[in-house]
Amino acid sequence: MKKVNVFFVLIFMSVSIFLWPGDFADTAIKIKSLMAQQKKEWNQGNIEGFMTTYWKSDELTFQSGNKRLKGWHQLLAMYKKNYAGENMGKLDFTDIQIKPLAPDAVYVLGRWKVTTKDSFKEGLFTLIVQRFGKEWKIIHDHSS
Amino acid sequence: MKKVNVFFVLIFMSVSIFLWPGDFADTAIKIKSLMAQQKKEWNQGNIEGFMTTYWKSDELTFQSGNKRLKGWHQLLAMYKKNYAGENMGKLDFTDIQIKPLAPDAVYVLGRWKVTTKDSFKEGLFTLIVQRFGKEWKIIHDHSS
Repeated sequence: MKKVNVFFVLIFMSVSIFLWPGDFADTAIKIKSLMAQQKKEWNQGNIEGFMTTYWKSDELTFQSGNKRLKGWHQLLAMYKKNYAGENMGKLDFTDIQIKPLAPDAVYVLGRWKVTTKDSFKEGLFTLIVQRFGKEWKIIHDHSS
Repeated sequence: MKKVNVFFVLIFMSVSIFLWPGDFADTAIKIKSLMAQQKKEWNQGNIEGFMTTYWKSDELTFQSGNKRLKGWHQLLAMYKKNYAGENMGKLDFTDIQIKPLAPDAVYVLGRWKVTTKDSFKEGLFTLIVQRFGKEWKIIHDHSS
């Protein structure tokens, strides 16, 4: 049994190395498109559209400051409470870095800025993004 | 070529699913031990020991509030500047969640608290931890 496991680990490792580099260029394009979709939906005032970029699961997690949210519905409620209407303003991202973790998982670092008529909020984010079939979804967001 | 790739993806997926559950129980033990080491070293006033839990690389990243640090040496310098001596106090972690991403990558959520004689600081963290050979190291830390 031990020998069989070692054999599978070796196949697993070689296949990962073999498949990864080409896949990552393609993955990076998909992640950039996900971030562009976030910006577009937000800037059209569409919180529900923005929320389609997140994993629609009770296992979705969001951390910010001293507060942890769990589940897609909690996150939607937070965005609606804090940003709905004129408070949404204009969202922009800068300094984005997309880093591979596995063929179906990456993490993304960046700066976010929301500018409203009178003021702005800004900070950093860490996203963990996972592939489900053909779609990539944010499974964890830590914003500060 | 397309067919060969699909074949390898299928092998890759089955092998991952086959190997993962057993491996993850073992991984979770290693990650708990990493977090315990962080606490122990910090509480002995040993910032260098604490820093051995981080990937010693210029690619290590750390985000907190509005500030992004890059590289192990920048992070060491920040900890020394902000915490050296009596400011280190006592570090504790609660609400830790360890979540698998791949056989060699996990993310860890939790709350941190540093209590000194006169006051305390606390917040949330997201760690991305990767395996290098037999050792697991933090490759990204977002604390708020």
